[in-house]
Amino acid sequence: LNSTNPTSPTIGVFDSGFGGLTVLRAMLPRIPGARWLYLGDTARLPYGAKSKQTVARYAVSAIEYLQQHGADFLVIACNTASALALDEIRAAARVPVLGVIETGVAAAVAASRSRGVIVLGTAATVASHAYARACAQAGLNTTEKACPLLVPLVEEGWAEHEVTDQVVRIYLEEAFAAAAGNAPDTVLLGCTHYPLLREVFARHVPAGVTLVDSAEVTAVRAAELIGVSIQAAASEAPLPAPTFFVTDSTMQFQSLGERFLGQPIANVTHVELPE
Amino acid sequence: LNSTNPTSPTIGVFDSGFGGLTVLRAMLPRIPGARWLYLGDTARLPYGAKSKQTVARYAVSAIEYLQQHGADFLVIACNTASALALDEIRAAARVPVLGVIETGVAAAVAASRSRGVIVLGTAATVASHAYARACAQAGLNTTEKACPLLVPLVEEGWAEHEVTDQVVRIYLEEAFAAAAGNAPDTVLLGCTHYPLLREVFARHVPAGVTLVDSAEVTAVRAAELIGVSIQAAASEAPLPAPTFFVTDSTMQFQSLGERFLGQPIANVTHVELPE
Repeated sequence: LNSTNPTSPTIGVFDSGFGGLTVLRAMLPRIPGARWLYLGDTARLPYGAKSKQTVARYAVSAIEYLQQHGADFLVIACNTASALALDEIRAAARVPVLGVIETGVAAAVAASRSRGVIVLGTAATVASHAYARACAQAGLNTTEKACPLLVPLVEEGWAEHEVTDQVVRIYLEEAFAAAAGNAPDTVLLGCTHYPLLREVFARHVPAGVTLVDSAEVTAVRAAELIGVSIQAAASEAPLPAPTFFVTDSTMQFQSLGERFLGQPIANVTHVELPE
Repeated sequence: LNSTNPTSPTIGVFDSGFGGLTVLRAMLPRIPGARWLYLGDTARLPYGAKSKQTVARYAVSAIEYLQQHGADFLVIACNTASALALDEIRAAARVPVLGVIETGVAAAVAASRSRGVIVLGTAATVASHAYARACAQAGLNTTEKACPLLVPLVEEGWAEHEVTDQVVRIYLEEAFAAAAGNAPDTVLLGCTHYPLLREVFARHVPAGVTLVDSAEVTAVRAAELIGVSIQAAASEAPLPAPTFFVTDSTMQFQSLGERFLGQPIANVTHVELPE
């Protein structure tokens, strides 16, 4: 890390919206000594429908903003940006960059003995086949399954609702039916909204199947990479709460975001990013 | 109408995506003599999250495109554009313009005796309060209810699914509970995806409540306004199938769109609209 204060790194988390807050939530207890910046490009979400060029331009402007504000480690919590623009982001970054897809796939590789993996994601993530490509390079047989109802269900606040339980059960049944030839023993949650449905998934995956939560494994990997700082920082006094930057309504971010972060959100500032 | 051929008007239908196809579907049998242009700004959907200025700019560029291609009557089938930009569209148009919100509200006024109306729509439409304002001007007491799961359910192809049945039942229960003070006798479907759920709604609205389908009433109103042409045109030979212009993938439009239109879609051309 090229931080001026290596015992207290500043970690910049970027997402197109709210989902990345589950990644931040998983990181907070694991890297207690850090300062946190979160940038949600909420005015331009969803990224899923946008071209590779556009996503790369938006993502690069976002991480430049985070670097200007002191980030010395970047977590790309946005699946679309990780799928379409990680190379461009790394080329533009002056600090280490971690993307959710690579960490998710690495964890699936570690978890799977059958080499058969199911990846669940949004329609856009699945259409990009970013997970399938990364899994294939890692020697996994992958079945991707688009689950377009899950993000709206989470955003409706229905994470614990029986309708959601039913929808998750149906999606998993369809995914396992489609993946039968690969003998899948691992399900990778390839969307940062899905950690909020972790218990619902756990109820419905067949016995012996491992659930890989990309928020969780990204947090573990970030902690490993920043590891050297943790012990030093853990002994310090508590650091300030995360600082949030959003490109759309700060009020909406606060109210919807608290569900994702699992704790109150303060310090939200509206910012304009270049087109 | 300022058409060069008043017996065969060219009707331009504009929407941000697919939903407007339900309006087109309702119009086709009612205005048999017309030629049809449909423009779906699919690359820039959803409009719901965009600012009034942006929506107005997009909508004006879309209707200019339709006019350049011969439209002499414009139907704004997009709720967001009708809510945020109808004045700007009218100012820019050289032909008559019909918006889904005004026709929906006029139909609700005609249907309701209690003056209590429930309007169902997307989160963005409800947040704009465009229906509430238009209803209040017309002397109606309105309860708006956001139903964010319904568009994803329709787009998932689950219009007939038991999950959708359950979600519609829950939304209607919540809406009627919230509207109890207004004694609502009319439910206005304020989203162009909802006509595909018409039968589901019909199963769950209380007895004596009228369901107003904005696609249907927009078609009736368009036919009235163009009325003079109909009889002349009805005697002519069948005219060509609608011509479709979309700003994103033509293949995706074709496959998803046929469900909304209820018939095969051909003649889809990709177009670029100015930013």
